Amino acid sequence: MNPNIPPRNNRKRVVIVGAGFGGLQLARRLADRRQFQVVLLNKTNYHEFQPLYYQVATSGLEASSILFPLRSVFSNCKNVHIRLTTVNKISTTTKTVETDLGPIDYDYLVIATGADTNYFGMQNIIERALPMKSVSEAIALRNRLLQNFEDALSVTNDDEKQSLMNIVVVGGGPTGVELCGTLAELKRTVLPRDYPELDFTMMEIYLIEGGAELLGPMSVESQQKSQKYLEELGVHLIFNTHVVDFDGTTVYTKEGTTLRTNNLIWAAGVRANPVNGLPPEVIGRGGRVKVNRFNQVEGFTDVFAIGDVALMTEEKWPNGHPQVAQPAIQQGKHLGTNLLRIEKGQPMQEYKYKDLGSMATIGRGLAVVDLPFWKFQGFFAWLVWLFVHLMSIVGVKNRLVIFINWMWSYLTYDQSLRLIIKPKLPKGNLEAIKTKIEDQLVTK
Amino acid sequence: MNPNIPPRNNRKRVVIVGAGFGGLQLARRLADRRQFQVVLLNKTNYHEFQPLYYQVATSGLEASSILFPLRSVFSNCKNVHIRLTTVNKISTTTKTVETDLGPIDYDYLVIATGADTNYFGMQNIIERALPMKSVSEAIALRNRLLQNFEDALSVTNDDEKQSLMNIVVVGGGPTGVELCGTLAELKRTVLPRDYPELDFTMMEIYLIEGGAELLGPMSVESQQKSQKYLEELGVHLIFNTHVVDFDGTTVYTKEGTTLRTNNLIWAAGVRANPVNGLPPEVIGRGGRVKVNRFNQVEGFTDVFAIGDVALMTEEKWPNGHPQVAQPAIQQGKHLGTNLLRIEKGQPMQEYKYKDLGSMATIGRGLAVVDLPFWKFQGFFAWLVWLFVHLMSIVGVKNRLVIFINWMWSYLTYDQSLRLIIKPKLPKGNLEAIKTKIEDQLVTK
Repeated sequence: MNPNIPPRNNRKRVVIVGAGFGGLQLARRLADRRQFQVVLLNKTNYHEFQPLYYQVATSGLEASSILFPLRSVFSNCKNVHIRLTTVNKISTTTKTVETDLGPIDYDYLVIATGADTNYFGMQNIIERALPMKSVSEAIALRNRLLQNFEDALSVTNDDEKQSLMNIVVVGGGPTGVELCGTLAELKRTVLPRDYPELDFTMMEIYLIEGGAELLGPMSVESQQKSQKYLEELGVHLIFNTHVVDFDGTTVYTKEGTTLRTNNLIWAAGVRANPVNGLPPEVIGRGGRVKVNRFNQVEGFTDVFAIGDVALMTEEKWPNGHPQVAQPAIQQGKHLGTNLLRIEKGQPMQEYKYKDLGSMATIGRGLAVVDLPFWKFQGFFAWLVWLFVHLMSIVGVKNRLVIFINWMWSYLTYDQSLRLIIKPKLPKGNLEAIKTKIEDQLVTK
Repeated sequence: MNPNIPPRNNRKRVVIVGAGFGGLQLARRLADRRQFQVVLLNKTNYHEFQPLYYQVATSGLEASSILFPLRSVFSNCKNVHIRLTTVNKISTTTKTVETDLGPIDYDYLVIATGADTNYFGMQNIIERALPMKSVSEAIALRNRLLQNFEDALSVTNDDEKQSLMNIVVVGGGPTGVELCGTLAELKRTVLPRDYPELDFTMMEIYLIEGGAELLGPMSVESQQKSQKYLEELGVHLIFNTHVVDFDGTTVYTKEGTTLRTNNLIWAAGVRANPVNGLPPEVIGRGGRVKVNRFNQVEGFTDVFAIGDVALMTEEKWPNGHPQVAQPAIQQGKHLGTNLLRIEKGQPMQEYKYKDLGSMATIGRGLAVVDLPFWKFQGFFAWLVWLFVHLMSIVGVKNRLVIFINWMWSYLTYDQSLRLIIKPKLPKGNLEAIKTKIEDQLVTK
């Protein structure tokens, strides 16, 4: 195995680790710039539009609609080299990235590895809770939720049945709120039609939040409205409560309450994915990599970090920027411009976060939107949410298919992708079919 | 675990095993008929449109476009009970079906279990070849083919590289022909754009057929035209040749030729999936269950078989009907009518296969169509193929999405679903994550 990256030929090689919002923007910025050779390393062959995972998990959108093949994005670029691999370690002394395919030298290294679910080290929760920080996890969640109702048909004990149907979501951020809203609507519309043999008054949806309000960083109006919307949809909101354990059927909290469910969905926070090989002193809060206003990792001029994994402080953002799409997109573009400036012998420019506002959708015709100078909620907010997300999706065809799906669901009250699709394997003990399992599954 | 089927209340219970073309038609025919209680048993929660697997395998269509959730089909039917389970055995003496959920009694049993890949007992081929008789297998094939090109980027040995890129398809029926045509077009259009670092003149596509022509049961004109089309697309056709072994990199034939490839796609034939518990004397050629013209299994009045698994002979069809969609659909409808007739005290009517013709598409604007009184090939045939398949798909939204995908590919020469999506699992040895593996995978 050899990464087989072609020679640089007097160009500077920029190695970008991760093709999320930040890495993709940067690579696009540098595509077809003859000063640079770009090596884009990613674990999958697609870019994921993370804000819509919850719609994949709830059968509203097909996974492919929120994914875009990386090779399509760069199909006409001669200077971008995509490799699907895992970065195990970087060495800043030899200026090398160690990957599963072998070592790759860099002139500039950009860490754009994003963030993953934060379980706060609770082993039982790592093993049993359902995360939603990748499209694979969103599909697994969809499969599991649908399978639960099938299983509920064949149990006779009412406690077991309720445990299969109940859902506990931890974390009152946009992911938790949007997921609970959608689940509550499925409970009212699609599920009773699909499972007339089940009694859906038994099914309860709980949202547990450690703080005292939903959507922490948003405006008080949006927080209160989203709370009102969710309560009207029948979601039980539990504030100031911290989940500490889960045995597969019971959720335990620090505050002493317990809830019965087979389904604990974990959306309680994220932790950055820094790469191995950085000096420990550059790793800050939440595993993020400390960078200056040029996105340079502290102490380096040729190693950068952008997006969720980067910890840049501004006066207005003493704890770093929010770990959402906008800072990543902006920093990716900004760093691209700065790298071009360096090569032209011009000084780099400081990055400044331009807060475009935030929004969350709660249900059918219900959303909350905080723009810098205007806050509004309700149906118009929902239309704005739809429009902004549709326009952010990569690919005209994806947009068209998502638009059809959304209109369809809106008109028919139907989520049509209620499919439990799993890879199929030949019978045999696990060791015997090991290579086939590895062919079908990604292990983290 | 208990199947929990509600009591019959003086209705006759029809247990249908399998929700393919035949089983689905029958269940639809009996839906909302108060004389019957219908129990539909299937391994997955969706109906699969098998004729388009090859488009899923070649990134042309998303899996969800050719699947339809069973619970959507019957969402307003009170008398249809769907259970996702495997039938292990039937007992005709106690009139019981043994399932993974427990036993289910029947008044009428309908075996509609279809057919699966026939490897003719060759163990190395079972373990290493790529089948395409389920949507899961089609997705696995897509993942594997795309991963091969990624792997080809990182090998340095030219033989290994070619072995990854070469594809050998076995079986010159519609599946093999349609797959080879699509692969040949990908090789010419999409793949060189996606992988400018690879030399696609190295990649060869072989189609191996045991007989002397392609599309065995079709007209000579269609056979010759499809051969011409494939040859023009650059597919190597090898006739009168039988693959007997495959070690993972070399394909061996009975005739002595060998071919180097990592990718042996097996479309060489099917074998029926009869259920356990039938008397051995009713199992005929290819594992099919011998039935009379009422689809009654030989020696029974209350056990039926329809579709691919059924072996019914007519004067014109001494070896049984072709194992394709039409006989299954027709027999499903016909049996529904006959069951209604029995309950009305009327005599059953004999089934007679109405051959509507057959068709196959070879590539962009190229298809062959044999109608009973008209045979034609080329662009118009391709339009007819598109129209017939689009109209056969279950679900208006699926039709719309497929139509967009087809138009998109046609206009842009692009197959936009080039995604390698795999379930993600926590790290750990296989035994430790066994339950998570089982949650994610189906083992046959």
